[in-house]
Amino acid sequence: MTDAPIETDAVVVGAGPVGLFQVFELGLQEVRAQLVDALPHAGGQCLELYADKPIYDIPALPFCTGRELTERLLRQIEPFGAGVHLEQQVSALAARADGRFDLATSTGTRFLAKAVVVAGGVGAFQPRRLKIDGLDRHRGAQLFEHAAGLHAHAARRIVIVGGGEAAVNAAVEAAESGAAAPASVTLVHRRDDLDASEPVLQRLRELRAAGRVVFVAGQPDSIIEERGRLAALAVLCADGTTRSLPLDALFVLLGWSPKLGPIADWGLALERKQLVVDTARFETSTPGIFAVGDINTYPGKQKLIVCGFHEATLAAFAIGERVYPDRAQPLQYTTTSTKLHQLLGVAAPLP
Amino acid sequence: MTDAPIETDAVVVGAGPVGLFQVFELGLQEVRAQLVDALPHAGGQCLELYADKPIYDIPALPFCTGRELTERLLRQIEPFGAGVHLEQQVSALAARADGRFDLATSTGTRFLAKAVVVAGGVGAFQPRRLKIDGLDRHRGAQLFEHAAGLHAHAARRIVIVGGGEAAVNAAVEAAESGAAAPASVTLVHRRDDLDASEPVLQRLRELRAAGRVVFVAGQPDSIIEERGRLAALAVLCADGTTRSLPLDALFVLLGWSPKLGPIADWGLALERKQLVVDTARFETSTPGIFAVGDINTYPGKQKLIVCGFHEATLAAFAIGERVYPDRAQPLQYTTTSTKLHQLLGVAAPLP
Repeated sequence: MTDAPIETDAVVVGAGPVGLFQVFELGLQEVRAQLVDALPHAGGQCLELYADKPIYDIPALPFCTGRELTERLLRQIEPFGAGVHLEQQVSALAARADGRFDLATSTGTRFLAKAVVVAGGVGAFQPRRLKIDGLDRHRGAQLFEHAAGLHAHAARRIVIVGGGEAAVNAAVEAAESGAAAPASVTLVHRRDDLDASEPVLQRLRELRAAGRVVFVAGQPDSIIEERGRLAALAVLCADGTTRSLPLDALFVLLGWSPKLGPIADWGLALERKQLVVDTARFETSTPGIFAVGDINTYPGKQKLIVCGFHEATLAAFAIGERVYPDRAQPLQYTTTSTKLHQLLGVAAPLP
Repeated sequence: MTDAPIETDAVVVGAGPVGLFQVFELGLQEVRAQLVDALPHAGGQCLELYADKPIYDIPALPFCTGRELTERLLRQIEPFGAGVHLEQQVSALAARADGRFDLATSTGTRFLAKAVVVAGGVGAFQPRRLKIDGLDRHRGAQLFEHAAGLHAHAARRIVIVGGGEAAVNAAVEAAESGAAAPASVTLVHRRDDLDASEPVLQRLRELRAAGRVVFVAGQPDSIIEERGRLAALAVLCADGTTRSLPLDALFVLLGWSPKLGPIADWGLALERKQLVVDTARFETSTPGIFAVGDINTYPGKQKLIVCGFHEATLAAFAIGERVYPDRAQPLQYTTTSTKLHQLLGVAAPLP
């Protein structure tokens, strides 16, 4: 924690499509950027909610999925080599007297930056929690909201709550981990209508038939503790009975839900939980802090990706002026500018 | 000319990338559109100036050419079946008392529309003219500024002025048109450094070697008339001599240059020849007339295609309100809206 912070021109908070394009437009302005996101991958809502769903209104892409859009943008920003910091939230932000900003994330990464762009979308994605009295105090010891710790529980009884890809995948992977497999794997979801891709569902069917995964249809209702430890999860079943599932570790994999989070505490002007910006620079009420994409508001605002791309573009020009106050730079085009070709690492086109 | 005008919701003036995307966003708002452009094809500057040149800054398209961008946008607007009116300029515009607009083009097409969007880019492209005293009066009879009439001149002597693809192509096509070939084909350009694709240049070299095309390096200087007809073009050659090229028809194929044109006369607020708009609706000083893309100006404006896409999007929302004043329509997403899927003609995604 006493290491020097990462010094950079701009920190982009949020690696959704607009945050990614922000890095691209900053790159064209020769502004170096670091990217932070709460999710374990870039792509934001687009990948979290629409990975395999169609998007029809990205200009010149008559059809793409959220995954494809993310991959295309990641390819587009490659030339600029921005640092990417995942699974962490910017939890602290403070302005220095010289106009720079100190930032720190929930995992301890620190930055010193000349500008901050909040591309926070609907907020930082946080794992959806199971609301059961007394459950929270077991977090980290016996309660987990991500599948990362799954393989540390060999020879123990694990219960997984959830009906989506993440939960089904975790059940299958745990049961198939050979010698490292837990003593028992139980998957709990309110109904037997799991929402995962067909190959994974097929593997689950085989594991259920072989008795290696037990499926319980019902609603988690309460916990049973013994000597301060979590001993079992009580599940209210559809037939009105309550079933008690003994366990050593509980994995709650219910997906992610967005929260505005610490941004609300930065003293920036808000309107209905959106950051108020101007339409020439997309700057918030604090000079040097910009906001683009679904998290901002201004007259006429529509929460569309195509609008976020424009906002990121004008913000990049404003940040370019902030980082290079003495530079008088006329608008350059990627088609014709030798300088932009060098930045993009492409050869000049034939005349 | 006494036919009824085409009644439509919106006329989009300019079929460049932003005008094309305007049609798409209007379509999502159920606003029917008619598209007008001065060029013989859609694509605007993008196709006229960058057809085979690279563009790197369209979001999620790390690389494309002007031609590819145009083709992608044309595919994207297909579901909306907008009427396309090429090789004509909107030459007259007048507001009716009921808020609708009468428009007429240079070729006589007439519209009655509830809204007008000027997506005019750098202006309407017009053929670049050869400035020689007395030449203009032969336009249409012996002077042509497009290659369309080329094949009507069999057995006559034609002179083509220009060094680009259009001029070289015209020379090759005229010479190779068999029985319909002119008596002679002469190509005039200031130097022997023609700018066309290699296969066309190769064909020209063969035709020159066979004496079927004569190339003259020099600057057209004056014309020689006989009994009111254009008899010859006098060309000032590099060696200081003047060469007289007898002709029956003169084709000046020097490319296109943009002119703001009649738009300047519509009484809209201008700032340095740009149409002044607000940033919530991208509407000009006349309600119902909108301006998007390179032709507009507002604080922070950058002449970039990505900005035009956003402007067209917000203009479409404003025009949707104008066309359907009683409709209360929440923002819908192409990923999830059944209504938008119907408009786009796509099947709903699997749940």
